[in-house]
Amino acid sequence: MASAKHIGISVKKNENLSDWYTQVIWKAGLADYAPVKGFIVLKPYGYAIWELIKDILDRKLKETGHQNGFLPVLIPEALLAKEKDHFTGFTPEVFWVTRAGNNDLSEKLALRPTSETIAYSSFSRWIASYRDLPIKMNFWNSALRAEIKATKPFIRNSEFLWQEGHTVHADEEEAKGEVMLILDIYQRLIEDHLAIATIAGLKSEKEKFVGAQYTTTLEGMMPDGKALQMATSHHLGQNFSKPFEIKYLGQDNDQHYAWQTSWGISWRLIGALVMMHGDDKGLLLPPYIAPIQIVVVPIFRDRDSKVVKSKALEVAEVLRKSGLRVIVDEREEYTSGWKFNEWEVKGVPLRINLGPRDIENAQVELVRRDTMQKSTVNCSILVDSVFSILNEIQTNLLLRTKEILRQYLSKATSYDSFKSILDGKGGFVYTGWCGDQSCETKVKEETGADLRVLPFDEQQETGLLSNCVYCRQPANKIAVFARAY
Amino acid sequence: MASAKHIGISVKKNENLSDWYTQVIWKAGLADYAPVKGFIVLKPYGYAIWELIKDILDRKLKETGHQNGFLPVLIPEALLAKEKDHFTGFTPEVFWVTRAGNNDLSEKLALRPTSETIAYSSFSRWIASYRDLPIKMNFWNSALRAEIKATKPFIRNSEFLWQEGHTVHADEEEAKGEVMLILDIYQRLIEDHLAIATIAGLKSEKEKFVGAQYTTTLEGMMPDGKALQMATSHHLGQNFSKPFEIKYLGQDNDQHYAWQTSWGISWRLIGALVMMHGDDKGLLLPPYIAPIQIVVVPIFRDRDSKVVKSKALEVAEVLRKSGLRVIVDEREEYTSGWKFNEWEVKGVPLRINLGPRDIENAQVELVRRDTMQKSTVNCSILVDSVFSILNEIQTNLLLRTKEILRQYLSKATSYDSFKSILDGKGGFVYTGWCGDQSCETKVKEETGADLRVLPFDEQQETGLLSNCVYCRQPANKIAVFARAY
Repeated sequence: MASAKHIGISVKKNENLSDWYTQVIWKAGLADYAPVKGFIVLKPYGYAIWELIKDILDRKLKETGHQNGFLPVLIPEALLAKEKDHFTGFTPEVFWVTRAGNNDLSEKLALRPTSETIAYSSFSRWIASYRDLPIKMNFWNSALRAEIKATKPFIRNSEFLWQEGHTVHADEEEAKGEVMLILDIYQRLIEDHLAIATIAGLKSEKEKFVGAQYTTTLEGMMPDGKALQMATSHHLGQNFSKPFEIKYLGQDNDQHYAWQTSWGISWRLIGALVMMHGDDKGLLLPPYIAPIQIVVVPIFRDRDSKVVKSKALEVAEVLRKSGLRVIVDEREEYTSGWKFNEWEVKGVPLRINLGPRDIENAQVELVRRDTMQKSTVNCSILVDSVFSILNEIQTNLLLRTKEILRQYLSKATSYDSFKSILDGKGGFVYTGWCGDQSCETKVKEETGADLRVLPFDEQQETGLLSNCVYCRQPANKIAVFARAY
Repeated sequence: MASAKHIGISVKKNENLSDWYTQVIWKAGLADYAPVKGFIVLKPYGYAIWELIKDILDRKLKETGHQNGFLPVLIPEALLAKEKDHFTGFTPEVFWVTRAGNNDLSEKLALRPTSETIAYSSFSRWIASYRDLPIKMNFWNSALRAEIKATKPFIRNSEFLWQEGHTVHADEEEAKGEVMLILDIYQRLIEDHLAIATIAGLKSEKEKFVGAQYTTTLEGMMPDGKALQMATSHHLGQNFSKPFEIKYLGQDNDQHYAWQTSWGISWRLIGALVMMHGDDKGLLLPPYIAPIQIVVVPIFRDRDSKVVKSKALEVAEVLRKSGLRVIVDEREEYTSGWKFNEWEVKGVPLRINLGPRDIENAQVELVRRDTMQKSTVNCSILVDSVFSILNEIQTNLLLRTKEILRQYLSKATSYDSFKSILDGKGGFVYTGWCGDQSCETKVKEETGADLRVLPFDEQQETGLLSNCVYCRQPANKIAVFARAY
C-alpha cells in the first residue's frame, strides 16, 4: 500500500521523537487516522501485534483460573454514578448516547470508560454464597474516554483496545494476592515478551484509580526521558461491593461484603514497543512479539528467478515447521533494495537473503535488524542458527531498555537538584517524600512532574533520601517523580 | 452460582419454545440480562462457545488470506450518510452520541450499526494501484442497533458480537468468487461444527442488505417452524466504491473503481445452537463446539473419596492429553444426582461416571447427553471409545437438524395451500414466483411470511411450481417463504 510513495523515515529519532513516532506508526503500516479526531484504525500489521499480546496474556490468565466474558458498551448514567469518586473521576471524559433512531432516550447512556459498574451490577446477582467465589473474569473490549489533551496514536486515544479484569473474593488477603499475581503476570509479559524494563510499585493516593483502595503500577521510561504507565492492578477493597451490594453467605452463616480487584493493559503497550525499540530506519520488533519474525528475500535475475524463489519457499517452509512466523517476499515489481528498506521500516527482526551463489554453496545470509550485522550460515544448521539469533535479538533489546532505564534513574536530595535533573535529562527522579499530598501537588504545579510510583524495591536509597524533597520534613517514603506521557 | 435455586428446566421445549429458550440461556449459565433493555452480558460459559466459533472461523479466514484489523465504534453522521440507501436502511436503529463530558458535539456520532462506511473511508486512502489489491480484512467487534421489536437473547439484541469482513478487488469476478468462498466457509462452520443444516441461496431485492448489489444467505429452520437467518455474504458491486472514491490505477494505466464484498456472522449462531439441539433437560452442545466436551464425575463415599478422585483426575488427564476439553467435578458440597442434573442443563455432550467398583474393574461408565444411553468401557480403550462416541454424537445432532429441515420443507402450487401450510406446521414453503416485488410484499402483508431465500439448489422443483404463488403469472424463480425470527 502507498506503493508509489517514499517509504523511509525522514526524521531522526533523537531529534524529534514525537514526529519520528508518528511517521513510524503510519509508514510501518500499524495504524491510520480515523474520521473522528482522537480515534485510530488498526491496519493488519498493527492488529497482529495486538493479537500476539492478547494470545500470550490470555493464556497466562486462563492458566491462573480466569475466564472471559462480554459486557455491553452502554452503561446507564445512574449505574455509573453509584460509586461517587469513580463517577466524578470519569465524568469529564464520558461520551453520552442521548438518542436512538429518531427518539430521545429517557436516561442518557454512557459509553463505557471502564466496566466496574456494569460488571458489578451483574456480579451482585451471581453471588449468593461462598461457594460462588471467587469470580475471576476478564473482558477483551475497548474503552471510550473523550480525550481533551493532545492525542497520540496508541498512547492517548478516545477509544482504545484493552483488557479489563474484574475479580471478587471472599477475603481481603486473597484479593490482595490477586492484585500482585496480576501485576507479576503483566511484568513478565512486558519484560519477557515486549523486552521492556519497568519499575513496579504503588500509586499515590492522588494518582490511584478513582474508586480503588490502592493501585499498583508498572512504569516504563521512554527514550526521551518521559515516563509511561504500562499496566495497573487495583485493590478495590469493599468500595464497590458496598454500593453494588455484592454480598455472600459465609461458611459462618453470616452475610459479608466481598473484596474486589480490577486490572488492565491496553494497546498503549504497542506505543511503548515502537518508542522503546525503533530506530532511524523505523520500527524494530522483539522477535517474541513480531507478527513476522523472518522475511526471506530471494535475490534473482530473470534467468534464475525460478530456482531462487523455489529455494526461498523451501527455506521458509523449514522454518515455519519449527514454529516460526516467516514470509517470503516474492514480488517481481520491486527491487531487492526497496524490499530491504520496507522490511526494515516494518521492523522484522531477521532477514534472510538468498541468491544463486548462496544456493550453490548451500548457505544463506542472515541480517539482524537490531545491529544490522550480517552472517552466513550453512543450510544444515539453519534452524538452530535462526533460533539462536532471534533469542540474541530478544535479549539484546531487553538489555537496551534496561540500560535506558538505568541512565534515566537519578536521585535528588534537594529540590534544586530535583528541578535541574528534570530540566536536564529528565527521567525518573528518586526523592524522599513526607507522604503529604500537598507536597506532591506543589511539585506537579511547579515542575510538571507527577509522582509516578512508590517503588516496591527501594534499592537501599532510604538513608540518602531522608527528607521530603519539597517541605524538608522527614520523609517516610521513597517517591519516584517524572514528567510523563 | 445461584447454587441454592432449583436448576432444572421447568418448561417443555415443544410446549413453549420461547420460555424454554430463555430458561435454558439463564440456567445453563450462558448469559444474563444487562441493565439496559435489549442488552445482555455473557457469562464465561456463553463466551467460551463464542471463543470456539471465533477460533474455528478465524483460522479458516486466515488460511484463505484474510487479515484482522480494528475500526472505531463511532462514525460521523456525514460518513454514514454517504451511501444513501445504506443510511436510510439503518437510520431508525442508530444510537447517537451527542455529548462528550459536559459539551455538546458539533456533529453527532453514530455507534456502528455496521462498518462499511468507516472501513471504506480508510480503504480509499490505502489503495493507489492494482498492487495494493486485493484487500481482504475482517473485524471481530460488536454492532449496535437499537431494537424496537421484542428482543431475545442472542437472536435479537441492541448490541451483538459478530465479525464483519470487508474486501476490495480489482475485478468483479474475483469479488463474486469471494462472496461464494465466504458463504461456503460459513456453511462448513455451521454444518460441520455447529451441526446445523441450512439452505443456501440469494436474498430478494427487497430483503438484500441495504447498499448491496446482491446478498447471499444461509437460512436455518428452528424446531417451531420459524426460519432464522444464520449468515450473509454480500456483493457490493461498486455501490460503495463510487461514493467513497475507492479507485486504483490498473495495469492499463487507467483509473478504475474497485469491486467490494462484505459478510458477517454473529452470536445469533449461539441462539441457533440452543434452539436446535436443546431438549427438556436443557442445553445440548455438539462436541466440536462444546467448551466442556466431557465431565468426569467421581462417585464416592467418605471412605473412598481419595482414591476415586485421584483416579478421576488421572482419567481426565489422559483425555486432555488427547486434545479433549475435560473437567472433573470434585465438589464435595453437592450430591452426584445434583451434579448430573447441572451438567445436563449445561449440555456437556459426554459424562463419565467413576465409582469404586469401576476402579476395581478397570472400567468407566459413559453417558451420552443426546440419547442418555449408558455404556461401560474398559480403561484400556477409553480414548478411542470417547472419540468414537463424541463423533457419533456430532453426527447424530446434524442428522437430527437435517431431519427437522426436511420435515419443514413443503411445496405450494396454490396460494390457498401456501397459507394453510403456514398456518399449519409452518416451515419453509417452496413456491413459484414471478419475480415482482409487489407479489412478495403482498404475501408478507397477508401471511407474515418473508421471502427467505431464492435457493441455489432448486431441487428440480421448477416444473411443479411454474406459476407465481400470488399473481399466477408464469414464475421465473423458485422462492422459499417462511415466517421468521
